[in-house]
Amino acid sequence: MEINKSYHSEKYEQKKDLQYFLKGIKNGNRFILSEAITLIESTNLEKRNLALKILKELPVLTHSTIRIGITGSPGVGKSTFLDTLGKMLTALGKKIAILAIDPSSRLTKGSILGDKTRMEQLSKDPNAFIRPTASGTLLGGVSAATREAVDLCEAAGFDVIFIETVGVGQSETEIVNLVDIFCLMILPGAGDEIQGIKRGITEMANLVIVNKADGDRKLQALETSKQYENAFKLLPSRLPGWKTKVLTCSGLTGDGLSDVWNNINEVINHAHKTSFFHHQRKKQREIWFDEISRNMIIQYYLEKQSSADYIVTLRSSVLKGELTFYEALLTLSDELKK
Amino acid sequence: MEINKSYHSEKYEQKKDLQYFLKGIKNGNRFILSEAITLIESTNLEKRNLALKILKELPVLTHSTIRIGITGSPGVGKSTFLDTLGKMLTALGKKIAILAIDPSSRLTKGSILGDKTRMEQLSKDPNAFIRPTASGTLLGGVSAATREAVDLCEAAGFDVIFIETVGVGQSETEIVNLVDIFCLMILPGAGDEIQGIKRGITEMANLVIVNKADGDRKLQALETSKQYENAFKLLPSRLPGWKTKVLTCSGLTGDGLSDVWNNINEVINHAHKTSFFHHQRKKQREIWFDEISRNMIIQYYLEKQSSADYIVTLRSSVLKGELTFYEALLTLSDELKK
Repeated sequence: MEINKSYHSEKYEQKKDLQYFLKGIKNGNRFILSEAITLIESTNLEKRNLALKILKELPVLTHSTIRIGITGSPGVGKSTFLDTLGKMLTALGKKIAILAIDPSSRLTKGSILGDKTRMEQLSKDPNAFIRPTASGTLLGGVSAATREAVDLCEAAGFDVIFIETVGVGQSETEIVNLVDIFCLMILPGAGDEIQGIKRGITEMANLVIVNKADGDRKLQALETSKQYENAFKLLPSRLPGWKTKVLTCSGLTGDGLSDVWNNINEVINHAHKTSFFHHQRKKQREIWFDEISRNMIIQYYLEKQSSADYIVTLRSSVLKGELTFYEALLTLSDELKK
Repeated sequence: MEINKSYHSEKYEQKKDLQYFLKGIKNGNRFILSEAITLIESTNLEKRNLALKILKELPVLTHSTIRIGITGSPGVGKSTFLDTLGKMLTALGKKIAILAIDPSSRLTKGSILGDKTRMEQLSKDPNAFIRPTASGTLLGGVSAATREAVDLCEAAGFDVIFIETVGVGQSETEIVNLVDIFCLMILPGAGDEIQGIKRGITEMANLVIVNKADGDRKLQALETSKQYENAFKLLPSRLPGWKTKVLTCSGLTGDGLSDVWNNINEVINHAHKTSFFHHQRKKQREIWFDEISRNMIIQYYLEKQSSADYIVTLRSSVLKGELTFYEALLTLSDELKK
């Protein structure tokens, strides 16, 4: 039996070390890429450390990449849009990755299946990689993990990276800090669905996409696009010297998708010409270094002191009103001094 | 000589202990209040701890308070506006505090004199307290310190707290998380000055104030207010069931200031009626508890390990390109493991 067991594990459990991951990623193996992202998301320090080692050893990119953020309330049709646009792009020879951050997936992880089903064509395309990313924890980390997942995808040869969010989570403003261009998707009409979006997100947009501009809603979509274009004239611009455009399209019929893709490229070209592209990526690296190192200090500290539970308990005492805000903070301070 | 020295220090250096601060704050002593805020802002752990003890012992408030955020680019006239509005409010029997966060003050601290001079009438008013707050450090903290300064001011009897910012700093979106109402100040015209404001700030506004609506600019101000009111209809609303209003006024002549003050009260009343006021303050406490406890862990950790310099060095190596992003993070991780 013992011999059998050992034989079994040798045969079926390949050693998943640094070389396994580096080789897999270099070969664009989507399964291994996905496994590496799971390491990134892990709260286990050993696994996190292996993830860092992988990231450190990734070869320098020889191809240019575009990172595109896309946000819209549930129901605006992001998945159908990405499914159709994605197929259009792979037909053009692009390799595309979609990282979907779904705050509802924290508990159920149910969206993994959901996303693949929702992007029916793309999920079968060998030049596409679709990956839902779990939402963050008390200690943060969702956006930092996404930042690292982007690096992995690019190293695996993907050149257009979409980061899809529903615009309601804590980490949305941080997502803006890891993309080159940020798109907001809305529906034709009064824009009621935008009321569900976290404040501050709207004016981050470099491009507003009025989706479902098909059939009866085509005229209404044009009207909506004019209204938003006027409104955006009054908001701060994310890209200096560039006015946010509002385009209409239909993810279902594919109408207007070429325009959207052309506009994305115009924004990127403008950003390259003005050096904003390079400057922004540099600035983003700085922001993420601070964010990730802060998270790391906290994670190591809590691990060493086994005080994670302690803080969670203090926090819930404050929320329940059993301790005042400053009673809890002073208690924490005394604990940290030990 | 020795005896003289001892006598000297006994006479002139009053012992500044917990009781000294609590008594001073209870009596509304503005000098001691200011000293206590300096303790809050200190990076010295002993002083921070005394500050926490003061905060913990503050009596439960018996008066209701309003916390008002006001942001606008330099030159829109925030100081003149606050000077005139402040005098109007103290004449109504209010006690007002103005906490001004000036990112330029980090190095020079020069704005302390500047602010007092700019609010000429108010700085002589015994029912007003004006305090510039230093900008944050690598380890954050400006907003957490401001959060605590608000509690001190309220305990000292101030009932209307203004937090003034210029809308360009890292901590602006956090400031939104410590006020009951957030006002954006702009100038009549094309709104060019809004382009300098950090993205995401505009749509946080519960109220937009078009200032300098006097003389020749009165008509233009009305036109501007209409444009912004239309734009805000399309943005997410910060206060459910409340459309952001755009009002014109002149801080110089005082024209329209009563309207502004009435509208602030309407927003607050609506928030009270819908329980949003209570809900928002509770949610804010939660956000700040996480923020402050995270900062505290990092501060204690760096203090104990004397590794603050180490991280600063790593960070600058990344920025200079001497280390890659992940080389630096892996080095930090190894250091933390020790």
